[in-house]
Amino acid sequence: MNWYTEQWSEDCKFSISYDEHLHSEQSPFQKIDFYKGKEFGTFFTLDGLMMVNEKDQFIYHDMIVHPAFATNPNIKKVLIIGGGDGGTAREVLRYPTVEEVVMVEIDERVFRLCQEYLPVTAEGVEEDPRMSLKFEDGLAYVKEAADASFDLIIVDSTDPISVGEGLFTTAFYQECYRVLNTDGILINQHESPYFAEYADNMKKARHKLSTIFPIAEVYQYHMPTYPSGHWLFGFASKTKHPITNLDAQKWNAFGLKTKYYNTDLHLGAFALPSYVREALKIAK
Amino acid sequence: MNWYTEQWSEDCKFSISYDEHLHSEQSPFQKIDFYKGKEFGTFFTLDGLMMVNEKDQFIYHDMIVHPAFATNPNIKKVLIIGGGDGGTAREVLRYPTVEEVVMVEIDERVFRLCQEYLPVTAEGVEEDPRMSLKFEDGLAYVKEAADASFDLIIVDSTDPISVGEGLFTTAFYQECYRVLNTDGILINQHESPYFAEYADNMKKARHKLSTIFPIAEVYQYHMPTYPSGHWLFGFASKTKHPITNLDAQKWNAFGLKTKYYNTDLHLGAFALPSYVREALKIAK
Repeated sequence: MNWYTEQWSEDCKFSISYDEHLHSEQSPFQKIDFYKGKEFGTFFTLDGLMMVNEKDQFIYHDMIVHPAFATNPNIKKVLIIGGGDGGTAREVLRYPTVEEVVMVEIDERVFRLCQEYLPVTAEGVEEDPRMSLKFEDGLAYVKEAADASFDLIIVDSTDPISVGEGLFTTAFYQECYRVLNTDGILINQHESPYFAEYADNMKKARHKLSTIFPIAEVYQYHMPTYPSGHWLFGFASKTKHPITNLDAQKWNAFGLKTKYYNTDLHLGAFALPSYVREALKIAK
Repeated sequence: MNWYTEQWSEDCKFSISYDEHLHSEQSPFQKIDFYKGKEFGTFFTLDGLMMVNEKDQFIYHDMIVHPAFATNPNIKKVLIIGGGDGGTAREVLRYPTVEEVVMVEIDERVFRLCQEYLPVTAEGVEEDPRMSLKFEDGLAYVKEAADASFDLIIVDSTDPISVGEGLFTTAFYQECYRVLNTDGILINQHESPYFAEYADNMKKARHKLSTIFPIAEVYQYHMPTYPSGHWLFGFASKTKHPITNLDAQKWNAFGLKTKYYNTDLHLGAFALPSYVREALKIAK
């Protein structure tokens, strides 16, 4: 049996058996590996960290996309930074009301390989006429984007190391603020509260976002293949609050079938454990 | 480096490094092992499955105890089946309003070893004058208990294999129903939705409980050292509903400091992902 193993902290690790190591390459940005196993189907890693697999990708992609749309069902223009596997774009494109999606992924190889090996996330994304794919640096793209040009920015990034680092900076969040319109929402990968290293990054992200956006909340989801299984997204906005502005009726009227997300869970996801609230300095 | 490894499914496993294998024995009921490592502190396993560790035990014990008390703050008589580490009793005993706690653990060795190696859960439990410790079969105890003699039954068990098997049967749930008073609540270890074997047991438990109790809900928590990290407890009752009867004000008036549980999270915990609702046949 072959095992893919990921250290979750210095003292613990998670291992998945695979039947085939489908592909391995060093792109200009990172090491990309695709594997195929029984429990998780096809999965890929970047620099040795689990990104996406066929078994639990629905959880991540439901949660990075739908809470924003249920808070503001009028989202029309969406910017995705990262998200090279295509799953975030796939979920965004399910909304017939969305008019334009710009996806800025620094590493074209990730997207091309997902088209080849992981159609569950990448298929159909490039072909959608509303889609604009750019393979360039997301931070540079946002710097040059016009004021108030997007309703939603989704930062679907790796951890704040190597390629993803710039997407966790105050400078980047400030540019996002500028590029979002009045009702704009920023969703970002927000790490995890449980293991120290991830928790540290989580606290830093929250601190930076809350100094820039008047509304800066955090929500959780169960992601079994990420370290500890307890993962977070950030929800930041100038005016839209994810609880008080939740429009469950309108979101349910979209009639989207989702395997993880629902509008009850939306509210539940923002109800964080006390130790997480404390770490994030979120008032009760 | 020494590693304790647990298979989470046929194709994946979780490993924790330890510095010391503190103790190992075969009791009349199961194999008991205590380890000590850096990340999780002291932890013990039964038949090779992680039970309790110093790092995330607060999550499990908060969630198995407090939701019931926030739904019915008048709980006075509590029966704990299993719970040999003492952590569940420890949390129950924090309520000054609790008058009597009977804990029925089949394996005295588990409790004695936790007194020795895991004081964080076991210390002080035996000494509390409200506590009645019985080392015998929980199923047999419940069969002989008087009608309507408890306000709360907590089934703090292993998985439905070996020792824990009888605690997942219809016969046992029926006896619990009889032994609970009108406002009585039954909380039980309810497995996990993610990996097939656990999900199967989860569905069976839910099906049985919902044929006996008019109210049979399920709630979730993030438990990093259990398979997938996504775990559930069952909440069954004759009359008390965990959402509509939640008395947040009264629970908060107890003034208990909790690291995981809070009354917002209480509501959130019952908001299950769509695929879990579907598997459990819980209507929207």
